[in-house]
Amino acid sequence: MAILARAKAMQAAGRDVIHLEVGEPDFATPEPVVAAGVAALRAGQTHYTPALGLPELRAAIAGYYARRYAVDVDPGRVAVTPGASGALLLVMAALFNPGEEVLLADPGYPCNRHFARVVEAVGVGVPVGPESGFQLTATLVEQHWGERTRGVLVANPGNPTGTVIPVAELRAIHEVVKRRGGWLIVDEIYHELIYEADEPSAAALGDDVIVVNSFSKYFLMTGWRLGWLLAPAWLMPDIDKLAQNLFLAAPTPAQYAALAAFGDATRVILEGHKAELRRRRDALLPELARLGFGLPVKPDGAFYVYADISCFATDAEQFAASLLDASGVAITPGRDFGRHGADRHVRFAYTTSLARITEALARLDVFLRG
Amino acid sequence: MAILARAKAMQAAGRDVIHLEVGEPDFATPEPVVAAGVAALRAGQTHYTPALGLPELRAAIAGYYARRYAVDVDPGRVAVTPGASGALLLVMAALFNPGEEVLLADPGYPCNRHFARVVEAVGVGVPVGPESGFQLTATLVEQHWGERTRGVLVANPGNPTGTVIPVAELRAIHEVVKRRGGWLIVDEIYHELIYEADEPSAAALGDDVIVVNSFSKYFLMTGWRLGWLLAPAWLMPDIDKLAQNLFLAAPTPAQYAALAAFGDATRVILEGHKAELRRRRDALLPELARLGFGLPVKPDGAFYVYADISCFATDAEQFAASLLDASGVAITPGRDFGRHGADRHVRFAYTTSLARITEALARLDVFLRG
Repeated sequence: MAILARAKAMQAAGRDVIHLEVGEPDFATPEPVVAAGVAALRAGQTHYTPALGLPELRAAIAGYYARRYAVDVDPGRVAVTPGASGALLLVMAALFNPGEEVLLADPGYPCNRHFARVVEAVGVGVPVGPESGFQLTATLVEQHWGERTRGVLVANPGNPTGTVIPVAELRAIHEVVKRRGGWLIVDEIYHELIYEADEPSAAALGDDVIVVNSFSKYFLMTGWRLGWLLAPAWLMPDIDKLAQNLFLAAPTPAQYAALAAFGDATRVILEGHKAELRRRRDALLPELARLGFGLPVKPDGAFYVYADISCFATDAEQFAASLLDASGVAITPGRDFGRHGADRHVRFAYTTSLARITEALARLDVFLRG
Repeated sequence: MAILARAKAMQAAGRDVIHLEVGEPDFATPEPVVAAGVAALRAGQTHYTPALGLPELRAAIAGYYARRYAVDVDPGRVAVTPGASGALLLVMAALFNPGEEVLLADPGYPCNRHFARVVEAVGVGVPVGPESGFQLTATLVEQHWGERTRGVLVANPGNPTGTVIPVAELRAIHEVVKRRGGWLIVDEIYHELIYEADEPSAAALGDDVIVVNSFSKYFLMTGWRLGWLLAPAWLMPDIDKLAQNLFLAAPTPAQYAALAAFGDATRVILEGHKAELRRRRDALLPELARLGFGLPVKPDGAFYVYADISCFATDAEQFAASLLDASGVAITPGRDFGRHGADRHVRFAYTTSLARITEALARLDVFLRG
């Protein structure tokens, strides 16, 4: 966050800053989605929807699981939310009492700890490293399950590492969590951005798994603020009441626009962008290695590379700040994602064009040789 | 909520239901606002904004306080939020620790208690009646301030009563709260819908007052999910961090659309709707009195009438259910707004046309004579 503010200040002062710190792709919302949004506005679709979302969007999301993942999801188990942020807040509020703990990977998405904290639950960071692809494992969950542990939250693929949990491992985690009588929450907001394999959704593990997803990343609807969750049927009345009380409902124009997100025309556009992201990753990775960055894991998906800077420095925050000042290249220090190994790592986000990434790499080269 | 579900089920089954339970006017979003939203979508304004909102919208909101209320507000003190709901959640999370108490009027807006509860603070309902216009007073605040009290939340005008706190009383409440070292939070989402008087905004009381407002009610942007808050400058970094963690930001198309909400063309449309709401109130009130409802207070604003049913029944929930079943008229029982006097009161919302209100009154007449 400090880097982001500094990068903006530099830019405002006229410096050319290359943004490799931004967790938002540079692509526009697909035209069919924009057109659906415009049509909704023109048709006066600006009133509240039900708290759990438009029935037709909940049905469309259920249909998406059937088509994309061959999983049968009852639309009644779908809640449309103001972003994945809204989904995670709802889930934390619905599942955890004050003082109860949820296990999270460290490094991991920093807001998750805050969603827990705002409902006075506790996000407990479990140190993870390259040996588990920076993800939790069944063994780690077993080891760290304590008296007050009530659940596990994993992101698949993860942020900042882009790594996927092997399906057998995820199933094993689920088994441990079930045996302990806890909750498994799987954040799949980058799940459509897995480049090689065709991974199953955690929705296939069972109706008891809480799955969180979003129209932001793959569907390129960041600013529309729309996400969803799947929860067990018996939990939905609680989720409904909480959503009603906390949000009233997700934004209506966004919900109508999202009806076009699952169409074939949109899919073609999105798959084109996904291919472009993959090209960026494949261009960035070998060059970072050549420059001397450690690449402890190969990112399977998302749009992040988590890199080890031990060859160059001992303080990643200082490294990122110096790089920004000297070269106008903004990256995110590990500290933003937790504590474990944070000083040795930085995150590169390939959310800008190949040309800009190439320019950033050239600047990095100069910076590192200086 | 039970009434709403029942009303919908009846309607789905083909019954003609008149909705006097809905807290959302039947007017469309003003055309200039829709046009600005469409233009934003067409221009690709679909990425994240800063967590506190678009700088130009924060400036426009500050300008609104200058023009409308003659209060000088620094744009840096404005946070744009996902609805007033988002603002209230932020405020509760920012100001109150677990177990700390905030005083609320009972009856009052039911979600306020939940915003407190989700951060494990406690909303303490203070029984209020017609003698104070169903609002808190400085004396009541003084009387109910306890060891763990850290603030007071008032809605001005209030829901379900539509009553305004006299400015001298609000100033006196502010004095008590300041002396106690607590927070005064004033919800002004219905403030533009005060029909006779020209009331000052609580923003005029001082920079230490937290003011919550919304584009939903007067500005007719319910489904867009957009609100704002004013807070002391020194609190804004906390609010910024919390907003970033809880929401990322308010919806982007809505923020661009809202830039047109303060324009002259929009104002003319909104004032027309306000005049229509006033006509509805003025038609509804004498008829309810004629039918035998008790009207403990005259509503100054919002679009609600809080009525006493003691002449007809002893259980307002049962009364509302019977009325809905027998006559297809949906109203809200007092229980939805608290406990104090809840069994004796119902809320009428005049959010539907005069013709439908007239029809509802005719049905009520038949129902009450039956």
